[in-house]
Amino acid sequence: MQTKIPVGILGGTGMVGQHFVRFLQNHPWFEITWLGASDRSSGKPYREATSWRLDGPMPATVESIVVDDCKPGRAPRLVFSATDASVATEIEQAFAQAGHIVVSNSRNHRMEPDVPLLIPEINPDHLKIIPLQQRRRGWKGQIATNPNCSTMVLAMALAPLKPFGITKVIATTMQAISGAGYPGVASMDIVGNVIPFVGGEEEKMEQETQKILGDFTGDAIRPLAAQVSAHCNRVPVVDGHTVATSVALERKTSIEELIEAMEKFRSVPQERKLPSAPPRPVIYMQDKDRPQPRRDAMRDQGMATCVGRLRECPVLDYKFVALSHNTIRGAAGAAVLNAELMYSEGLLD
Amino acid sequence: MQTKIPVGILGGTGMVGQHFVRFLQNHPWFEITWLGASDRSSGKPYREATSWRLDGPMPATVESIVVDDCKPGRAPRLVFSATDASVATEIEQAFAQAGHIVVSNSRNHRMEPDVPLLIPEINPDHLKIIPLQQRRRGWKGQIATNPNCSTMVLAMALAPLKPFGITKVIATTMQAISGAGYPGVASMDIVGNVIPFVGGEEEKMEQETQKILGDFTGDAIRPLAAQVSAHCNRVPVVDGHTVATSVALERKTSIEELIEAMEKFRSVPQERKLPSAPPRPVIYMQDKDRPQPRRDAMRDQGMATCVGRLRECPVLDYKFVALSHNTIRGAAGAAVLNAELMYSEGLLD
Amino acid sequence: MQTKIPVGILGGTGMVGQHFVRFLQNHPWFEITWLGASDRSSGKPYREATSWRLDGPMPATVESIVVDDCKPGRAPRLVFSATDASVATEIEQAFAQAGHIVVSNSRNHRMEPDVPLLIPEINPDHLKIIPLQQRRRGWKGQIATNPNCSTMVLAMALAPLKPFGITKVIATTMQAISGAGYPGVASMDIVGNVIPFVGGEEEKMEQETQKILGDFTGDAIRPLAAQVSAHCNRVPVVDGHTVATSVALERKTSIEELIEAMEKFRSVPQERKLPSAPPRPVIYMQDKDRPQPRRDAMRDQGMATCVGRLRECPVLDYKFVALSHNTIRGAAGAAVLNAELMYSEGLLD
Amino acid sequence: MQTKIPVGILGGTGMVGQHFVRFLQNHPWFEITWLGASDRSSGKPYREATSWRLDGPMPATVESIVVDDCKPGRAPRLVFSATDASVATEIEQAFAQAGHIVVSNSRNHRMEPDVPLLIPEINPDHLKIIPLQQRRRGWKGQIATNPNCSTMVLAMALAPLKPFGITKVIATTMQAISGAGYPGVASMDIVGNVIPFVGGEEEKMEQETQKILGDFTGDAIRPLAAQVSAHCNRVPVVDGHTVATSVALERKTSIEELIEAMEKFRSVPQERKLPSAPPRPVIYMQDKDRPQPRRDAMRDQGMATCVGRLRECPVLDYKFVALSHNTIRGAAGAAVLNAELMYSEGLLD
Repeated sequence: MQTKIPVGILGGTGMVGQHFVRFLQNHPWFEITWLGASDRSSGKPYREATSWRLDGPMPATVESIVVDDCKPGRAPRLVFSATDASVATEIEQAFAQAGHIVVSNSRNHRMEPDVPLLIPEINPDHLKIIPLQQRRRGWKGQIATNPNCSTMVLAMALAPLKPFGITKVIATTMQAISGAGYPGVASMDIVGNVIPFVGGEEEKMEQETQKILGDFTGDAIRPLAAQVSAHCNRVPVVDGHTVATSVALERKTSIEELIEAMEKFRSVPQERKLPSAPPRPVIYMQDKDRPQPRRDAMRDQGMATCVGRLRECPVLDYKFVALSHNTIRGAAGAAVLNAELMYSEGLLD
Repeated sequence: MQTKIPVGILGGTGMVGQHFVRFLQNHPWFEITWLGASDRSSGKPYREATSWRLDGPMPATVESIVVDDCKPGRAPRLVFSATDASVATEIEQAFAQAGHIVVSNSRNHRMEPDVPLLIPEINPDHLKIIPLQQRRRGWKGQIATNPNCSTMVLAMALAPLKPFGITKVIATTMQAISGAGYPGVASMDIVGNVIPFVGGEEEKMEQETQKILGDFTGDAIRPLAAQVSAHCNRVPVVDGHTVATSVALERKTSIEELIEAMEKFRSVPQERKLPSAPPRPVIYMQDKDRPQPRRDAMRDQGMATCVGRLRECPVLDYKFVALSHNTIRGAAGAAVLNAELMYSEGLLD
Repeated sequence: MQTKIPVGILGGTGMVGQHFVRFLQNHPWFEITWLGASDRSSGKPYREATSWRLDGPMPATVESIVVDDCKPGRAPRLVFSATDASVATEIEQAFAQAGHIVVSNSRNHRMEPDVPLLIPEINPDHLKIIPLQQRRRGWKGQIATNPNCSTMVLAMALAPLKPFGITKVIATTMQAISGAGYPGVASMDIVGNVIPFVGGEEEKMEQETQKILGDFTGDAIRPLAAQVSAHCNRVPVVDGHTVATSVALERKTSIEELIEAMEKFRSVPQERKLPSAPPRPVIYMQDKDRPQPRRDAMRDQGMATCVGRLRECPVLDYKFVALSHNTIRGAAGAAVLNAELMYSEGLLD
Repeated sequence: MQTKIPVGILGGTGMVGQHFVRFLQNHPWFEITWLGASDRSSGKPYREATSWRLDGPMPATVESIVVDDCKPGRAPRLVFSATDASVATEIEQAFAQAGHIVVSNSRNHRMEPDVPLLIPEINPDHLKIIPLQQRRRGWKGQIATNPNCSTMVLAMALAPLKPFGITKVIATTMQAISGAGYPGVASMDIVGNVIPFVGGEEEKMEQETQKILGDFTGDAIRPLAAQVSAHCNRVPVVDGHTVATSVALERKTSIEELIEAMEKFRSVPQERKLPSAPPRPVIYMQDKDRPQPRRDAMRDQGMATCVGRLRECPVLDYKFVALSHNTIRGAAGAAVLNAELMYSEGLLD
C-alpha cells in the first residue's frame, strides 16, 4: 500500500480516544490525520488538548495535530467514534448524514435494528444491513458498531460453540478498572475490594450477545434465541475482563469436541490476514488456573480471547472461564478490526 | 456464668488457629486453656511458637500458655480443631475416641454421613446424627464440623429461600486471599490479577451446600436434591468472599417476598441469643452496589452474611450477590457458634 | 458525667465529616447534636444528605439530625471543623467571631502565628496563645487546629527525640488513599502504582513539624530550628501513612536510649486519661519488618503511632520508620483529642 | 552479523532465568543454546522443567532445549548467571575456572575487589580489573556482575550528577514485588500494605552504589567517598522500583543545570549503539507527578531510568524521584547490556 488511508477520531482527547490513538500508531493501512473533540479542546494541538493517561508516551505523530470540532467538514471519510454516550447519537448521525463512514465504539447505536453490531470473526455478514440503514435514514454515510467490552469476551468465547446450539448462558464478569475510563472508579471504592455492580452492563451483555450471535436473514438481523444472564462485577485489575461462564447446548457433545472447536475457530479476519486480526481468535489454555488478566490479556497484542477450564456444569451443560483485553479487543482494537473488515469488503472505496 | 468453660485448640499456632485465638478473646463462655500443635512447637510458650500474622497484637491471655502435642491427655474436653487437612483425620479421631468434643473447621470429616456439617441457623437438628456417630464408631467423644468458607456464604444466603424449593444454583465466587492461609497465595499471582481456580473449592461448595441444606430423617442426613454449580476465583481482596448467585425455585414468588424472607430470617442462635450469633444472620442491603467485601465483611463482628442486588435472572429465576467474612463466619466464628449451639443443647455437659 | 457536651460538625456530610461522625459515636463526653453543611444539603436529614462512604453503617444516632447551614446561630458552642479548605477560612472565622470554639482539622489557620497547631502529647502549652488570638482578632470564640495527617506521623515519632536536640529531618512518606477524600485518587492512577507527588503535602510537613515541635515563649510560638525535608508519595494502601525518616541529633546518644525514650514517652493526655488518648502514644515495635499500615494502623483505636527499625543512618544520625492512622490519629481523632485537652483545661466552660 | 553468539544461562529455570530467556528472545547478537539448572530439572526439556511465571507464553525457541547440569562442559563460552545466591559462588567460580565468561546477576561476587560491578553507562573502565582477577585467581575465564535492582535505580540517577561531587545520599525505595522472585512475597503481607523492610537490601544499596560510582585507579576500584543511606520498602506494585532521593553536592549548581546533565547524559553504550542500550539512559520527566512505576517502568523496553521532581532539599542540596524496571534494567537487561559492552570491547573473542 503506497499511501495510507486517512482516518479521524471523534472524541479523540478522551480515554477511549487515547486508546484509539495508541492502537493506530504504526497501523499499516490507516493514518490519523484528524482529531475531533469538544469546543473546549478545539483549536489546540493534541498534546495541549489532552491529558495523556496511558502507559508510555503520547505518539509523536499526533502531538501537533490541531484538534477540530466534532462536526463534519474537515474530517476524512473514515472516522472512528470514541465519543461519550451523552453526545454520540447526535454527532455520529451528523457524520453519517454527511457521508462519513462512522466506525463507533459508543453504545448509542448498537441495538438499532439497522446498525451492525459487528465482530469480524463472528458476524461479518451483518454488514449487509448497511444498505438498508442508508436507505431508511437517507444517509450517504453509515454507522457500524462494536460491542461493549464485557460482551466482547463472552461473544468471542461463545462463537465457536454456536454450531452446538447455544440455549442458555450465565456469565459472571470480573472487570478491570480501565473499562470505566478516567477518573472512572474511585480508588477508595476498589482497592482491596469488589464492586458487585457496573451500571447498565448486565443489560448490554444480555442483549448485545444475542444480536451478535444472531443471523442476517436478508433484510434483518434476527437475534439468537438463547437466554443470557449476566452478573457484572468490578475487581482491582488494571486491564482485562474475566468472565466465568456456564452454557447449555442443544447438541450432545464432549469437552474434547468443544475445546477443539475453540482451538480451530478461524474466520474472515484470519483468512484475509487483516492487520489487527489475531492468528487464533480464541486461545484455549490447558493450565488449570488460566487465563488470568494480568498475565494473558495482552496475548497477540491484546486481540486474542483466552479461554480455559472448560468442564461440565452440574446445572447447565458446560462451564469455562474467558478473558479479553477490554480496552483493546473490547474497544479500540475492535473498532479498528471492524474498519479493516469493511476495507477488505471494498466498503471504504 | 461464674467460671468459663476451658477450651483447647488443635493446630493453634497456624493461621486458622490464630483466628480462633483472636475470635475467642473475651468470649463470655469459653476460655482458652490449652493449645496443641506439632512437635516442633510443643513445649514452647505460644508467643515463641507462633509467628503471629493477624492484624493487631497477640492476645495477652495466651502468650504464655505452653504449647502441647496434638494428643489427647492434657487437653480440656472441648477442643476446636484448626489442624491442617493432611493430619486432621487422625488427630480429630484420636481426640473423639478419647472422649473429646471436637468442633472442627477442617474439611476431613465434613462429608462423612455420620458427622454433622453444621450451621446453627440452618440445620441445628443435624446434631441429632451424633449418637449414631458415637455408636457406629465406638466413641465417647464426637466430631462436629462447619463448612468451607465459600460454602458458608452460599448456604447462608440460600437458607431463607429453602421454603421456596431450591432446585438449581449457579454460584461464582470472588474469594479473598486470607482464605488460603499463610504464606498462601503468592503476591506475584494475585496483585492486579484474578486467579480463576481454587483447588478443591468447587467440589466442596457443590457437595457441602447440598448436605447443609438437607434434612435429618431420623437416622440419616438426606442432602437437598438441588443441582449446584460453582465457579471459584481468587481476587486481590484481604477478607470477605463475594458470591454472585443465580437460583431456580419451585414455588412462584416475587422479589419482594424473597427479600422479606431474607430480612426476617432468624433461627435458633438468635432465639437463644448465643454470644456469637449475629442479630440478623442475613442482612439485605438496598444500595445497588452492595455488599462489598472491604466495606461489609465485618458487619456484626464478621458474623453476618450480607446480600444485595436480588433481581430476576433470565436463565434461572433469581440472582443476587452474597458476602461473608471468610475467616470469621467462614471459619473460626463458625466453629465457635457451633460450640455455643452444642452448649445450649446441653451437649457439653 | 451526667449530660454529654453537645458538639457540632462543620462540613459534616463530607468524607472528613463522616470520619468525625464515626469517631464520635459512643464518645463518653461529646454528643453530636448539630451538623452543618453546604446549602445543597441543608434542611435534609443527615441520612439523606450524605453519601456514606465509610466501612460499616451510618451511626443511628445521627441519621435523623436535620442538616443546617454552615452558619452560626443554632450550632452548639463547640464545633469541629471538617470543612473544605476552599471555604474553611470564612466559615471558621465566622464561628469564632460568634463565640464558638472551633476545633479544626482544616489547613487554613494552621500556620497563623496566633493559632495553636496542637498535638496534646507534644505541645499542650501552645493553647496559651489563644488569649492573644482572641485579643488580636476581637473574638469571643477561638480556633485551634490539628496538623496534616502526614505531619502527625512525623511529629509524633520525633516528639520523644526532642530532648536530644533535633537538627535535621528527612522524611519520605508512603501515604494511604483515604487521605485524599472521596472520590480522591482515581483507581487508574494508583492500582499497582506509586504516585510520587501529593499536592502541597511536602510544604505542610516541613513547616507544620517545625511549629508543632516549637516552644511557646510567653507571647509567641517559636518554631523548632530544625531543617525538615519531605518526600511525599501515594501508595495503594487504604488507611495508614508510613514515613521512612532519617534524623540528626545534637546530643550523643544510643539506639537503646532512643528506643527507651519512645517507649516511655507519655504526656498530658495519658496523665489525665483523656478518653481518646492512647495508653502509649508511641509504640516501638521490635519485629524487623514493622510497623505496617494494614496490620498496625488500628492499634489503640487508630490513635497510637507505631515506630520500628530504629538504626544508625550513615548520613544523618539515626533512621526509623513510623506509622499512624491518617483519618483517625491524623484527622478526626486528632481534633477530638484536642477538644478533650481543651475541656480538661477548663477551656470549654 | 551472520551467526549469533551462543549463550547459556546458569539457573535458567528460576524466575531470574526466565527473565533472561524472555529478554534474550530475538536478541540480534546472542542466541540461547544451553540452559543449566539443578539436578532436579536436568535432562528435561525446558518446557517441562520450568513453571513459566512471566506474562505471555514461553518463547518457542527454548521450549525443547534439554536442561543441563550447572557444570562446565557442554555450555558455550558466554554464560549468564541467574543462579540463587546459595549456590552462585561455587557454580560461577567453577565456570570461570573452566574458561567461561560469566556475566552474573547474582550478588555473590559483586563486592569482591577484583570483580567489576558494571553499569556500561557509568563505569565501563571497571572492566580493566579483569586481568587482575584472572591473574590473582588463575582463571582463564572471568566473572563480571551487575548491581542489585535497587542500586541500579539509584546509581543511574546519580551518574549524571557525579561531576558535581556527590558527598551524601539518602534514598528511600518503594520496591516492586517482582524483585522478590517466586513465590516471593506472600500476598497476605503486601496486598493493601507496605513492608518497610527488604532483607539485606539497604546494605547492598549503600555499598554497591559507592563501588559503581568509584574510579579505576590502574590496579584497583576505589569506591566513591560519599555517604549513602538507604531505607528499603516493599509496596504492592508488580514491576518497577521507585526511589525518593536526597543528595548533597560539592559544587554549586542549579536545578536547571542538573536537569540538563541528566537529559544530556550519554555514554559508551549509546555511542556504540549496543542493542540493549536505551537511547537516553536517564529520561527526565517534566510532569509534576512522574515517574510512576506502572506507567513508566517499560520506557525503552524497560532499559531507561526515569527521573522527575528535581527540586531543592532543605536538608541536603537537592531531591528527586527515580525509577527503573527492576527485572529488566535491574537484572536480566543489565547483564545482557554488560555482555554487549564486553563483546564490543573484544572481550568475548
